[in-house]
Amino acid sequence: MKKHTTLLLAAGLALSGSAALAAGAPAADAVRETARQFFQPIPTPESVIKERNISADSIELGRWLFFEPRLSRSHIISCNTCHSVGTGGADNIQTSIGHGWQHGPRNSPTVLNALFNGAQFWDGRAADLKEQAKGPVQASVEMNNTPSQVEETLKSLPEYVALFQKAYPKDKDPVNFENMAHAIEAFESTLLTPNSKFDQFLAGADSLDEIELKGLDLFMSKGCVACHQGINVGGQGYFPFGVVKKPGAEILPPDDKGRFTVTHTASDEYVFRAGPLRNIALTAPYFHSGDVWSLEQAVAIMGSSQLGQELNEGEVKAITRFLHTLTGEQPQVVYPILPPSTAATPRPQK
Amino acid sequence: MKKHTTLLLAAGLALSGSAALAAGAPAADAVRETARQFFQPIPTPESVIKERNISADSIELGRWLFFEPRLSRSHIISCNTCHSVGTGGADNIQTSIGHGWQHGPRNSPTVLNALFNGAQFWDGRAADLKEQAKGPVQASVEMNNTPSQVEETLKSLPEYVALFQKAYPKDKDPVNFENMAHAIEAFESTLLTPNSKFDQFLAGADSLDEIELKGLDLFMSKGCVACHQGINVGGQGYFPFGVVKKPGAEILPPDDKGRFTVTHTASDEYVFRAGPLRNIALTAPYFHSGDVWSLEQAVAIMGSSQLGQELNEGEVKAITRFLHTLTGEQPQVVYPILPPSTAATPRPQK
Repeated sequence: MKKHTTLLLAAGLALSGSAALAAGAPAADAVRETARQFFQPIPTPESVIKERNISADSIELGRWLFFEPRLSRSHIISCNTCHSVGTGGADNIQTSIGHGWQHGPRNSPTVLNALFNGAQFWDGRAADLKEQAKGPVQASVEMNNTPSQVEETLKSLPEYVALFQKAYPKDKDPVNFENMAHAIEAFESTLLTPNSKFDQFLAGADSLDEIELKGLDLFMSKGCVACHQGINVGGQGYFPFGVVKKPGAEILPPDDKGRFTVTHTASDEYVFRAGPLRNIALTAPYFHSGDVWSLEQAVAIMGSSQLGQELNEGEVKAITRFLHTLTGEQPQVVYPILPPSTAATPRPQK
Repeated sequence: MKKHTTLLLAAGLALSGSAALAAGAPAADAVRETARQFFQPIPTPESVIKERNISADSIELGRWLFFEPRLSRSHIISCNTCHSVGTGGADNIQTSIGHGWQHGPRNSPTVLNALFNGAQFWDGRAADLKEQAKGPVQASVEMNNTPSQVEETLKSLPEYVALFQKAYPKDKDPVNFENMAHAIEAFESTLLTPNSKFDQFLAGADSLDEIELKGLDLFMSKGCVACHQGINVGGQGYFPFGVVKKPGAEILPPDDKGRFTVTHTASDEYVFRAGPLRNIALTAPYFHSGDVWSLEQAVAIMGSSQLGQELNEGEVKAITRFLHTLTGEQPQVVYPILPPSTAATPRPQK
């Protein structure tokens, strides 16, 4: 429960440091000073590649794999199907549609900046992007494939074999499920959205207008920042949905107990990872249930369920305006040209 | 039946002009001379854009629309789903999977170089790409949408409205289904694959090896060229599948009567558009039924069903090797960044 108590401590810090308490209209520099205690800017892909020493070959292989429909049993679902780089890194439907038109249990989280999340999935059941990449490939409601069939598929394609060898030159048998996941993680590490208006503000620019600035100030002073902080403005700790007041069943379906299914600890019932809010304006609908289509409504629900506060219309508007400033420069991805199947490639299965 | 008689005339021309009749191994220059009577090279997108006076704004709009999943009722199917620019312009499964995981009746034809087809679809029911683009959007087994809902969707997105206005500045109400189709056609007009080994050969280079050259020579002398000629090596006239001998029911399903459903003329039963063979090595499975996975097998079937000839193994291999030289430079497409939905955007429907 360590993470939960952080909420109150952080909220206290935000309240004491808030520029909004000092005057009617917040002063940019004071808000910036407080904001810098909670948030860090999204770096450029170039700096991340250098810092993490990610090879160009693994990124290139990952780009192929990210768009590769033959990772799925049907040959029509790729990572990009539910995490499209053209639509904020998600599919923006209530819950994802997978093999056989089955509906998944939860709303698809964005792949953009996902590298900076403390853990992956709404319940944090994967420690990192490499671990995450293995899940949907095998999930029966998603790609419905098996590691052995994926390996058989990739080994049947000479162009893939050559690229795996280039990306993993020390491996004797480089075409394997682990390296597939590693390469997808390498590519996804480049799907970053730097230089948002908010990041420009953190860096010292006057990039926020008065309402956006007020929204940021409220975001910190009201306590949203307790769960939504760090580089991704969320995506780190786990918190019960409904700290103060449980939302209705359509937003918090009773049969999805969240992190409880990972930890089997009673206190983790209806506990979810705090959503990362970067590019949140691009990825309605909201929450794990994907039932809320309006960002303003989502902000209001968070106020009542998590903070026990009925935010007034002006506050909701200002916070929503601030959230729009979290939209960064979207990645420009060239669609990969994938190698044709061979006689040895497993056929698609309906 | 005008088109059918062309088959025999063209075959005669091919036979009389064939270099293979003159000597054992065909001489490159003689084969080239004959080939130039039947085929033209794929031009570059730049030259097509200039020649057809296609505006940059309509191409850009078309790029967005081609990848736009909100053209479909479910919000998860775009043009690129079944005509992926990364996999030869098709989906490479037996028959396409659409709304509700329904299976379409025919194999998805490639979008690459489709501009140069005499008509679109296996039965030629659309005169051009603009007409074609309207079909799948409305087909219940594909995107399952309606023109009015598409227009409502596009009008709800300010970035689209602005781009439609730029692309169609003379229109009072530019955001409409017709312009959507026009813009998709404009973008698809750039999805060309110039500079294949075959096109280099046509231009005078020694780009074909001995077997590929023999294959091309056989392709002309055996009569394949009667139906598969022109810039797309096919895609022009209509011909009965099984001129000489009907293939089995799995390859020619009895309930798909082809062009008959368009013309309602008895002689058009089991008549289909000759498949364009550009990039054919990238787009197995083959034929409208998508039941044949091997290009060699497809060549052999064509020999027996259309030409009444049992091609020997060496002939099949050589023709197949020639067909591989029809693979051109694939288009490099940057994935578009699509605007987020608004409160006015119709929601996805399962």
